[in-house]
Amino acid sequence: MLFDSLTIVGVGLIGGSVGLAAKAKAATRRVVGVGRNADTLSRAAALGAIDEFTTDLAAGVRSADVVVFCSPVDRIARQALDAAPYARPGALFTDAGSTKATIVRDLDAGLPAHIRFVGAHPLAGSEKQGPEHARADLFDGRVCVLTPTSRTDAAALERVDLFWRALGCEVKRLTPEEHDLALATTSHLPHFVAALIAGQLPERWRPFTATGFRDTTRIASGDPRLWAAIAHENALALAHALDQFAGRLDELREVVLARDTAELTRILADAKRVRDALGS
Amino acid sequence: MLFDSLTIVGVGLIGGSVGLAAKAKAATRRVVGVGRNADTLSRAAALGAIDEFTTDLAAGVRSADVVVFCSPVDRIARQALDAAPYARPGALFTDAGSTKATIVRDLDAGLPAHIRFVGAHPLAGSEKQGPEHARADLFDGRVCVLTPTSRTDAAALERVDLFWRALGCEVKRLTPEEHDLALATTSHLPHFVAALIAGQLPERWRPFTATGFRDTTRIASGDPRLWAAIAHENALALAHALDQFAGRLDELREVVLARDTAELTRILADAKRVRDALGS
Repeated sequence: MLFDSLTIVGVGLIGGSVGLAAKAKAATRRVVGVGRNADTLSRAAALGAIDEFTTDLAAGVRSADVVVFCSPVDRIARQALDAAPYARPGALFTDAGSTKATIVRDLDAGLPAHIRFVGAHPLAGSEKQGPEHARADLFDGRVCVLTPTSRTDAAALERVDLFWRALGCEVKRLTPEEHDLALATTSHLPHFVAALIAGQLPERWRPFTATGFRDTTRIASGDPRLWAAIAHENALALAHALDQFAGRLDELREVVLARDTAELTRILADAKRVRDALGS
Repeated sequence: MLFDSLTIVGVGLIGGSVGLAAKAKAATRRVVGVGRNADTLSRAAALGAIDEFTTDLAAGVRSADVVVFCSPVDRIARQALDAAPYARPGALFTDAGSTKATIVRDLDAGLPAHIRFVGAHPLAGSEKQGPEHARADLFDGRVCVLTPTSRTDAAALERVDLFWRALGCEVKRLTPEEHDLALATTSHLPHFVAALIAGQLPERWRPFTATGFRDTTRIASGDPRLWAAIAHENALALAHALDQFAGRLDELREVVLARDTAELTRILADAKRVRDALGS
């Protein structure tokens, strides 16, 4: 058993899956859930994702060896700072936030010395929300990015690495800034583009959508509040990815209007090569 | 039995599925496949999608009650015009092309009086190619758009309507121009946007893609030649959809840089409402 007591702050799809995976893979003896909504926590407990729960952050982290913050990205740093005074000396803090630079900067600067923090982002998720959609195998084979800095404790880094591996992840490391740049292109850009495409569909044309439209826009069903917070935290990198994309869109428009079949084929063949390399 | 003899010109994913569905649903006694590649035709025959085949268009259409053109959109009109002199009087021609205005205009103007043509587009497909991926249930519950014009024979329209229904489709009707405008937004725009997103991914960031990126870009694995031809045929409508999209992208960029969480949430909530209405 890697840990005796794990606390999950924010028990939705990701937090619930952390609990289910930690228990299924015997990474911890006990799982405590912390959240603002006792109903949600109660449902997560009924599903076996957590053993006990509280809406009191201080009480919830008191005996934890490791605390995983799975809240929306705009809440993680505040919650970790609020929880720190109540956590035991040497407690490990990690998180599952989709953005890293702001969170890591705030916690590197603000956490007391008795807390050891390592930023993390498991690249697992879904357009679905809530602990009902949590799965013990959500992290199996998925990349988890750890974002250590010069201030990260080496032993804590190894422990947090082991923790995410125990849940099923393949662990990789990036700086917080490189993480945010990469994810702007691999996750945040596709999300917002999917939302724009869905938002551009007039109601009268809904019957004329098929698999392509549905695949391309599936993630637009994600939680608007979560993704607005991600865009807020990662605004500069996302704006940069949007700029790059807009430039490519502009070039494409010219090629389409020129009816340049050779160039259209080249653009599509390049894209196919990249996409085919990713698998289904 | 709706027809005695059906000929399919172009026996790939769509053509093969027309054959499998027509036979499974007893819409025809006999299915003849026509194509340029005897190997592909032979594989389609082995899979049961066609009963016999020829690479000779004239021979392939001679005894057909109905001929379905399932070739790339830039070949359909030419093939139908070439086939017409050899088809029996009263033969029905229809197609499965993803664009309609050019094809319908060329065939309305060019087909001899003894051929009765009704443009069609079954909204079924996949990023996969070839008769190996054909399925008898590909059309079940899918919309097939018929695009009759003032020159369309009413009895032929009813027969072609019955044909596509027999394959499993729900039939709807649009003018060819309205079809092309709608599909530019519901199919061609998402396809090219997916391709641009896939093409924007640097190789070093491939490990940092997850479900969202894969869903959003899945159709970028489609056949580049087919989609270049679609963009060529529907250039004006696609350019219009790209313009609309570029305008929305530009607005989004401003909202992101302003870190306007309320407006970001509104954009995402609008998109979610549209996408949720479409089902999975």
